[in-house]
Amino acid sequence: MEIGINGVWTMLGAILVLFMQCGFIMLEAGSTRMKNAGHIAGKTIFTIGIVSIVFWAVGYALIFGSHGNGLIGWGDYFGFNVMDIPDGASVAPTVNFIFQLAFATISMSIAFGGFAERAKMSAYLIFAIVFSVVIYPVIAHWIWGGGWLAAHGKQDFAGSTVVHLTGAMAAMAATLLLKPRLGKYNKNGKPNNILGHNQVFTTLGVMILWVGWFGFNAGSTITAGDGSFFGFVAINTQLGAAAGAVAAMLIAWLVTGKADISVMLNGALAGLVAITASCAFVESWAAIVIGLVAGILVFISMRFFERLRMDDPIYAMSAHGAAGVWGTLANGFFATPELAAKVGVGKAGLFYGGGLEQLGVQALGVVVCAAFAFGVTYLVLYIMKVTIGIRVTEEEETIGLDMSEHGAYGYPEQMKELQTSGTSQSV
Amino acid sequence: MEIGINGVWTMLGAILVLFMQCGFIMLEAGSTRMKNAGHIAGKTIFTIGIVSIVFWAVGYALIFGSHGNGLIGWGDYFGFNVMDIPDGASVAPTVNFIFQLAFATISMSIAFGGFAERAKMSAYLIFAIVFSVVIYPVIAHWIWGGGWLAAHGKQDFAGSTVVHLTGAMAAMAATLLLKPRLGKYNKNGKPNNILGHNQVFTTLGVMILWVGWFGFNAGSTITAGDGSFFGFVAINTQLGAAAGAVAAMLIAWLVTGKADISVMLNGALAGLVAITASCAFVESWAAIVIGLVAGILVFISMRFFERLRMDDPIYAMSAHGAAGVWGTLANGFFATPELAAKVGVGKAGLFYGGGLEQLGVQALGVVVCAAFAFGVTYLVLYIMKVTIGIRVTEEEETIGLDMSEHGAYGYPEQMKELQTSGTSQSV
Amino acid sequence: MEIGINGVWTMLGAILVLFMQCGFIMLEAGSTRMKNAGHIAGKTIFTIGIVSIVFWAVGYALIFGSHGNGLIGWGDYFGFNVMDIPDGASVAPTVNFIFQLAFATISMSIAFGGFAERAKMSAYLIFAIVFSVVIYPVIAHWIWGGGWLAAHGKQDFAGSTVVHLTGAMAAMAATLLLKPRLGKYNKNGKPNNILGHNQVFTTLGVMILWVGWFGFNAGSTITAGDGSFFGFVAINTQLGAAAGAVAAMLIAWLVTGKADISVMLNGALAGLVAITASCAFVESWAAIVIGLVAGILVFISMRFFERLRMDDPIYAMSAHGAAGVWGTLANGFFATPELAAKVGVGKAGLFYGGGLEQLGVQALGVVVCAAFAFGVTYLVLYIMKVTIGIRVTEEEETIGLDMSEHGAYGYPEQMKELQTSGTSQSV
Repeated sequence: MEIGINGVWTMLGAILVLFMQCGFIMLEAGSTRMKNAGHIAGKTIFTIGIVSIVFWAVGYALIFGSHGNGLIGWGDYFGFNVMDIPDGASVAPTVNFIFQLAFATISMSIAFGGFAERAKMSAYLIFAIVFSVVIYPVIAHWIWGGGWLAAHGKQDFAGSTVVHLTGAMAAMAATLLLKPRLGKYNKNGKPNNILGHNQVFTTLGVMILWVGWFGFNAGSTITAGDGSFFGFVAINTQLGAAAGAVAAMLIAWLVTGKADISVMLNGALAGLVAITASCAFVESWAAIVIGLVAGILVFISMRFFERLRMDDPIYAMSAHGAAGVWGTLANGFFATPELAAKVGVGKAGLFYGGGLEQLGVQALGVVVCAAFAFGVTYLVLYIMKVTIGIRVTEEEETIGLDMSEHGAYGYPEQMKELQTSGTSQSV
Repeated sequence: MEIGINGVWTMLGAILVLFMQCGFIMLEAGSTRMKNAGHIAGKTIFTIGIVSIVFWAVGYALIFGSHGNGLIGWGDYFGFNVMDIPDGASVAPTVNFIFQLAFATISMSIAFGGFAERAKMSAYLIFAIVFSVVIYPVIAHWIWGGGWLAAHGKQDFAGSTVVHLTGAMAAMAATLLLKPRLGKYNKNGKPNNILGHNQVFTTLGVMILWVGWFGFNAGSTITAGDGSFFGFVAINTQLGAAAGAVAAMLIAWLVTGKADISVMLNGALAGLVAITASCAFVESWAAIVIGLVAGILVFISMRFFERLRMDDPIYAMSAHGAAGVWGTLANGFFATPELAAKVGVGKAGLFYGGGLEQLGVQALGVVVCAAFAFGVTYLVLYIMKVTIGIRVTEEEETIGLDMSEHGAYGYPEQMKELQTSGTSQSV
Repeated sequence: MEIGINGVWTMLGAILVLFMQCGFIMLEAGSTRMKNAGHIAGKTIFTIGIVSIVFWAVGYALIFGSHGNGLIGWGDYFGFNVMDIPDGASVAPTVNFIFQLAFATISMSIAFGGFAERAKMSAYLIFAIVFSVVIYPVIAHWIWGGGWLAAHGKQDFAGSTVVHLTGAMAAMAATLLLKPRLGKYNKNGKPNNILGHNQVFTTLGVMILWVGWFGFNAGSTITAGDGSFFGFVAINTQLGAAAGAVAAMLIAWLVTGKADISVMLNGALAGLVAITASCAFVESWAAIVIGLVAGILVFISMRFFERLRMDDPIYAMSAHGAAGVWGTLANGFFATPELAAKVGVGKAGLFYGGGLEQLGVQALGVVVCAAFAFGVTYLVLYIMKVTIGIRVTEEEETIGLDMSEHGAYGYPEQMKELQTSGTSQSV
C-alpha cells in the first residue's frame, strides 16, 4: 500500500515539475521583447519534446543504468515497458522515470535562458540533444545515480547543483559565445537596460515556478507514508522563497530607491534555488537565512554580470547559478546531524559541529560540476559556432526571431501597430 | 485504505482535467483576434457552468444510470447526496462523478472551438445544454458506461473518441453551418491567414493542457494502489506529446521553410489526443510512433481543411478530430495482448498477432461516434440557424464580439489605441 | 498509513491554495490598468513573502498555540523543526502548517484588492505585517483554533468568514480611507467605468481560482482515507461556482442587455466564496441554490457599492464580502443534521428542522468577525494615513504605480507607444 501512497505523491511531484515549464514560458517571454515572444515561448515546448525522447532513449540509462560505474550509468536503454517494482523500492520505476524526466527538462530550460533573443533554431535543436545526452545525465549520475560524488556524501536534495547550477553554467557558456544582444552595450561599454515586455507574464511565471517547486523539493522525498517529512521540506521551501523575495526587494529599494519588480522576482527564484539543495537538511530558521542571503546575492550578481558585459536576459547565471552555488554550500554550514542521518546522505555542517568536512564535499561538487557543465557546453557550442553558426544575423535579430525563425509575429496585431506608429523599441 | 489512495489519485485527475480549461482559455484566446479575446475567454467559464449543472441533473445518469441499456443510461438523476461506496468499487462514486464531469466540460470546450469569432451568445447557451444532454452522454455511455461499443471491446482508455472526436465532430458541424469568418477567404476562394493575436497565450495554453493531460490519461486508471501502472500511462502520454510536437515542427520546417509555432503547438496537442485512447494499451516505443504520426497528420489536416473552405480558427477538426481518429485506430495496430488483458478491454492489435479484429472494432467506433456527434449537432444547429440564427451580424463581427455580445472590449486600452491609430487588423 | 494518505491529500490542498495566488495575480492585473500592471502583479509575490515569514514566526501560534484561550492562541512560536505527529491527529502538524499558511496568504491578497491602483508601497509592507499578526490569526483562532465561536458551533468549513469576509472587510476599510481613484467619480458624483485592461488575464485568474478552490474546500477535509467525503465536497464546490457564473451572467444580460464578462466572472467567484462555508454541510441541490443567490447578489452588490462612492477595483467587497456573508448564513438555512454530525460542528439549519439556532450562531459570527476585521484595519490604516500617508500623490497615480513605485513600466514597449500616440486612457 505504501508503494501506492509514495507513487501518488511522487507522480504529483512529477506533474508539478512539468508544470514549472508553464512558469518558464511566462518568465522568459515576459523578460524579453515583443518581437521575440512567440519564439521564446514556443521553443520551450519543442525542446521539452526533444529532451523527453532523448531521456527515454538514453538519458535515464546514463544516470541510473544498472551496469554503470562512478562516472556514468549504463544499460537499461529504451526502458520502461515493464511495470515490476524491485524489492525495497520506495517508488515504482515508472513513476521515478517520469519524475526524473521532468527534472531534466527543467535544467534544459534554464540553460536555454542564456540563448535568449539571438540564438538560431538549429542551435536549440542540436544543443538540446547534446545537453540531454552528455551533460545533464553525467552530473545527475555523479550525485543522484550512485556516482563518485554520491560516494563522497555530497548533499543536493533536489538539485541546486544537479539541475540549477548545471543549467546556469551551460547558460553562461552560451552567453559568452553568443555575445551580448544588439544594443545591450554602448560603444563605451555602458550597459543599456533592455526591459522585458510584460511583467505580468514574468510575475505569473515566478509564482507558477514557486508552486511547482513543491513538487521539485517536497516531491524529492519520493515517500509520503510517514505523512510528515514532505511537509517539513515544503515549509522550508516556502520560507526560502519568501525570504528571497523580501530580501531582494528591500536591498533594491535601499540601494536604488525603487522596489524593482524584476529584482524582487529573481529574489524569490534565488531563494527557491538556494533552498533546493538544503530543504531536507536544515531547520526552518536556517531556511529563512539561506533565502535572505540568496535574495541579496541575486541582486549583486545581476549587476555584477551586467558589468562584465555578460548579457544574460533571463538572469539564469544569477538566479540559478549564483544561488545554486550558495544553496549547495549552505548545506555545509547548516545541515543538522539528525536530518543528515534521516536523509542518509552526508554529515552535519559547520554550524552543527560537523567541521569543514561537509562544506568541503559541497565545494568540491560545485567546482567539478560547474566546470564540467561549462566546459562541455563551451566546447560543443564553440564547434557549432565556427561551423554552422549559432547566432542569427543582425537583420534577423532586429526584426525579431518570431519573424526570422518562425515566419510570423507572436503578436501580429500589436507588432503591426508598433511598426506603423514607428515607436517600436529598437534595442 | 486502497479506496483512499485511489480516491486521492482520481480526484487529482479531476482537478487536472478542470485545470485544462485554463489551457483552453489561453489557447483559444491566443489563437483568435484582440477584438474577440474577452468573449472567447469568458464564454469558457459560463459554458463550464452550464455543463456542470446539466451533468449533475441528467448527464451522469444518462451515462452511468443503473437502469439503462446498450444505447443509453437511465436513473439516478440529481444524484450524489449519499457517500456510500459499492462493494468492489475502485473509487467512490462522488470522486468518479467529479472526474466524469470534468471530462464532459472538456469535450464541450473542444466543440466550441468551431464556433469561434462569429457565433452568437444564444448559440453557446442553447448548444451547451443540447451537447450535455443528448450528444456527449450517449457516446460516453456507449464506450464507458457499459453500452454496445463497450460490449464489442472498443478500446478508448481516456477518450480519443469519447471526448476529442466527439467535440471535434460537433465543431465541424458548427464550422460548416456558421460559414467562414469575414475575410478568411477571398473572392477567388484563396484563404487568408487570420493569425491569432498572442502566441504566448497559445503556448501557455498548450503547456497547461499537456500538464493537465496527466490527469486525463494517467488519472483514467482510477487506481493507484499498485503504484506503477499510472506511471506507465504517464510515460506514454509524455512521449506521445513530445513526438507530436517535434514531428509537427520538423515537417513544417521542411515543407514551408519556417518552424511554424502554431503548427508545432498543434502537433503537441495532436500527440496528446492520439495517445489518449492507447496510452494504457501500447509500449512506449509505440507511443512515440503514434505521436510522430499525429504530428505529421495535424500539419496535413490543417492545410487540408483550410483548402476545403472550412474555417476552423482553433484547429479543433485537426488537433482533436484527425488525431482522435488516428489515436483510436492506433489501438488496432499497437495494443499488446498483455496490456489489453491488464486493462480488461478488447484484444491485441494487428502488429501483436491480433489480426484485424480490434482494428475493426476501433474503426466501427470511430465511424458511428463521429456520425452521431456530427449528425445531431448539424441537425440542432441547423434548426437554430433557420429559426433564431446562430451567427452575429457582419457589423457585429467587424467590431468584435467583445463589444457586440458583452458591451466592452477585453483590451479596452489597447483597442482604443488600435482604433485611434487606424491600424486595426480588419480581417 | 492513513496519515500518509491524509498528508498527501492535505498537501495537495495546500499547493492548490498557493496556486490560487497565480489566480489573484491574473485577476487583479487584468482588472486594473496597464500603467499599474507590474505593480499589481508583483506586490502579490512579496506580500506572500512577508505573510509567510510572519505566519511562521507568530501567526500559526496565535491561531493554534497550545497555551491559548477562547480569544487567542499562544505558545509554540517559530515552530516546526520537529516532525512528530500527536496521537489521534488526522494529519501531521508540518502539513497542517503549510495548509494554514496558504490560507493566510489568500485572505491577505483579498484585503489588498481594496488598495489597488493608489496605495503606496510602504502601506503594503506595514499592513501585511499587521494583518498577519493581529487580524487574520484572531478570527482564525475564534473559528478554527478552538476559540469562542468554535465553542458556539459556528460552521465555516473552509472559510467564507475566516478567509473571505475577513479579507473583504479589510478591503472595505482600505477603500474608505484611500478614497476613490482619480477619475472614478465625476464632480456630480456620477461614477465612470474604469475598465480593467485585460479580460483574458481576468478570466484565466478566475479559472485558476476555481481549480485551486478544490484544495481550499475539498482539501479542508484534511482526511481522505474514506475516499468519498472529499469528493462530495468537491461536487458542491463545482456546483456552487457553476451556478454563480450562470446566474450572474443571466441577471446582467436581463438587466443591462449585455452579458457582461466582468459580472459573470465575479459571479463564479461569488459562488465559490458562498459555498466555502457550507460545502461540507449541505446537499448538492442546495449548493446550486447557494451559488445562484451568490451570483445575483454579486451583481447587485457591485452596483450598490459603486453608487455609495466606494471604489473597489477588484470587487473584493462584493465577491468576497457580500458572498462571504451570504455563504456563512446559508449554513443556517441549509445545513443537514447528518452532515453537521459528520463534520462534528454545529447543528442543522432552518430548512432541516434546526430552527433559528444555527442561523443565529452564523449571524453572530458574521457580525463580530466583520466588525473586528473592519475596525482593526480602519484604526491601523487611519493612524498610518495621518502619519506616513497611505496614498501616492496625484502625479504618481497619473503616471502609474509601475513607474512611481518600481521605476519601470510593466509593459515598457506598449506604454511607450501609448504615450507617443497620445491615446493613453487618462482615467
